[in-house]
Amino acid sequence: MHILVLGGAGMVGRKFIERLARDGGLGGKPVTRVTAQDVVPATPPAAAPFDFESVVSDLSLAGEAEKLIATRPEVIIHLAAVVSGEAEADFDKGYRINLDGTRYLFEAIRHAEGYMPRLVFTSSVAVFGAPFHEKIEDEFFTTPLTSYGTQKAIGELLLCDYSRRGFFDGVGIRLPTICVRPGKPNKAASGFFSNIIREPLNGEEAVLPVSDQVRHWHASPRSAVGFLVHAATMDTAAIGPRRALTMPGYSCTVAEQIEMLRKVAGENVVKRIRRETDPVIDRIVAGWPRNFDPQRALALGFRAESNFEEIIRVHIEDELHGTFVK
Amino acid sequence: MHILVLGGAGMVGRKFIERLARDGGLGGKPVTRVTAQDVVPATPPAAAPFDFESVVSDLSLAGEAEKLIATRPEVIIHLAAVVSGEAEADFDKGYRINLDGTRYLFEAIRHAEGYMPRLVFTSSVAVFGAPFHEKIEDEFFTTPLTSYGTQKAIGELLLCDYSRRGFFDGVGIRLPTICVRPGKPNKAASGFFSNIIREPLNGEEAVLPVSDQVRHWHASPRSAVGFLVHAATMDTAAIGPRRALTMPGYSCTVAEQIEMLRKVAGENVVKRIRRETDPVIDRIVAGWPRNFDPQRALALGFRAESNFEEIIRVHIEDELHGTFVK
Repeated sequence: MHILVLGGAGMVGRKFIERLARDGGLGGKPVTRVTAQDVVPATPPAAAPFDFESVVSDLSLAGEAEKLIATRPEVIIHLAAVVSGEAEADFDKGYRINLDGTRYLFEAIRHAEGYMPRLVFTSSVAVFGAPFHEKIEDEFFTTPLTSYGTQKAIGELLLCDYSRRGFFDGVGIRLPTICVRPGKPNKAASGFFSNIIREPLNGEEAVLPVSDQVRHWHASPRSAVGFLVHAATMDTAAIGPRRALTMPGYSCTVAEQIEMLRKVAGENVVKRIRRETDPVIDRIVAGWPRNFDPQRALALGFRAESNFEEIIRVHIEDELHGTFVK
Repeated sequence: MHILVLGGAGMVGRKFIERLARDGGLGGKPVTRVTAQDVVPATPPAAAPFDFESVVSDLSLAGEAEKLIATRPEVIIHLAAVVSGEAEADFDKGYRINLDGTRYLFEAIRHAEGYMPRLVFTSSVAVFGAPFHEKIEDEFFTTPLTSYGTQKAIGELLLCDYSRRGFFDGVGIRLPTICVRPGKPNKAASGFFSNIIREPLNGEEAVLPVSDQVRHWHASPRSAVGFLVHAATMDTAAIGPRRALTMPGYSCTVAEQIEMLRKVAGENVVKRIRRETDPVIDRIVAGWPRNFDPQRALALGFRAESNFEEIIRVHIEDELHGTFVK
């Protein structure tokens, strides 16, 4: 089985490929080849039992998608995207990569005769725009308030129409905020949700820029990879034509995040969180969804963590070899 | 004031331009010029107090939108579209006209410096796909089951994002089924809703292919024109970022349509309806929305008929000079 991962150099793509290497297969079938496409080279996974190839290309250029699917990968994981902040700052780039790039891919598959891959499209809860219900239902409408959310919502619509037409077998998954995100602190407005866990566990100080009553929607990187695996292997007959699914996650306040950090790592670690309110971040975060009722995804077998303690323990296991700075 | 009507040769476009000619103005401002663009020539309105120009062009060709907005029309009414059946039969054509054409228009406006027109985008209740609630609320999600509905839903998303960014001042209006549609019977699956009124009033037989318990969502051509006028002139500050609105209409069964025809025109006219069930049409119609709860549009001042008798009387007044074949 050949798997193509678009955006394969990113955090979720890399972790998905590492899991394939560990599992050796996908859905009970051996994986023989993985192609990781991105705008920068993707790191090969350790000890992979399959051929691994890194392709550096720009999916938003005409003809590039055709090259990537020329060998007919059975599964395509489409993670390639310009992130929210960049799509808002650079209107042209956001539409070129997130919309045109996605359409080039879908069109290339449509024109490839006798080809019908499973296509997993990663969307985002940014397809929802405030005001929304405290707990957003599966049938709530998509009225994004960013260009990124707009582009993801359009991608979902195209995914459903191309799937309905039988051009490919698509599954759209709306990822929660991924927490704890590994790596260095970044300037994303959502960064602090991860920073206040990751940095203290590393012995470093982290800034909490909002009230600890702020509620948000989380899943671990391990769960995100699990969503991809399930979306790539599930029986799509059960989905029907509404192929964009809000993934499960865990909703909690910052206070609960901190309480669980205290439980797992102790008071010394929690003391490394410094409160310094940032009104700009506070205002941005106030417009974000806080909770979901993802009944369809749960019924279709998608699973995430059911408490924040578990999310912290996954981070310590997967990123810190089971230990941290006390 | 210069008004550009894209798709100006169609039934709704023609009636809108005729109303402009009768009113002489729009929103209290005199209309000095109307440009009607379409793939076929548009008929000039009778006794228009403004310059009228018919432009035959294909909006889906690069560069055509730029030409149309070169003189900076203050209001753009975007009705140009490939209809549902054709968009389903010809995938490429539907996306080219309904999606690419719309994007070319939006992009041309974005790149026109210092230009900020009111843009009215006509969408459709085809953005909804079964199963839905018996009475579809304003916050119900858009999961179209046709390529046409997909293209309209994408147009709505783009309209909102371009408006939010300040590139133009957009209003999206989802039209009900227009009834009584003037002209000859056509092969559209929805045609019978109009045929069973129009043909008997003309002294002709009409076929009813479904049960008279079928419920549907109607507004007259006069109301459709009223929606365009209101969308072109309303204060958009009241809309907020969710600029796609389900228009008001009147929901009734075929039995009620027939009962009102009897009340308005008498038993002799009703006798010209012949029942001949067509299982194909019956199945198509079963997947259509039956009723809506368009609270937002009503609160924003959009108005339609409040009973089917009124819809029949509008037809007799506007199309039949107040008379019919008894």
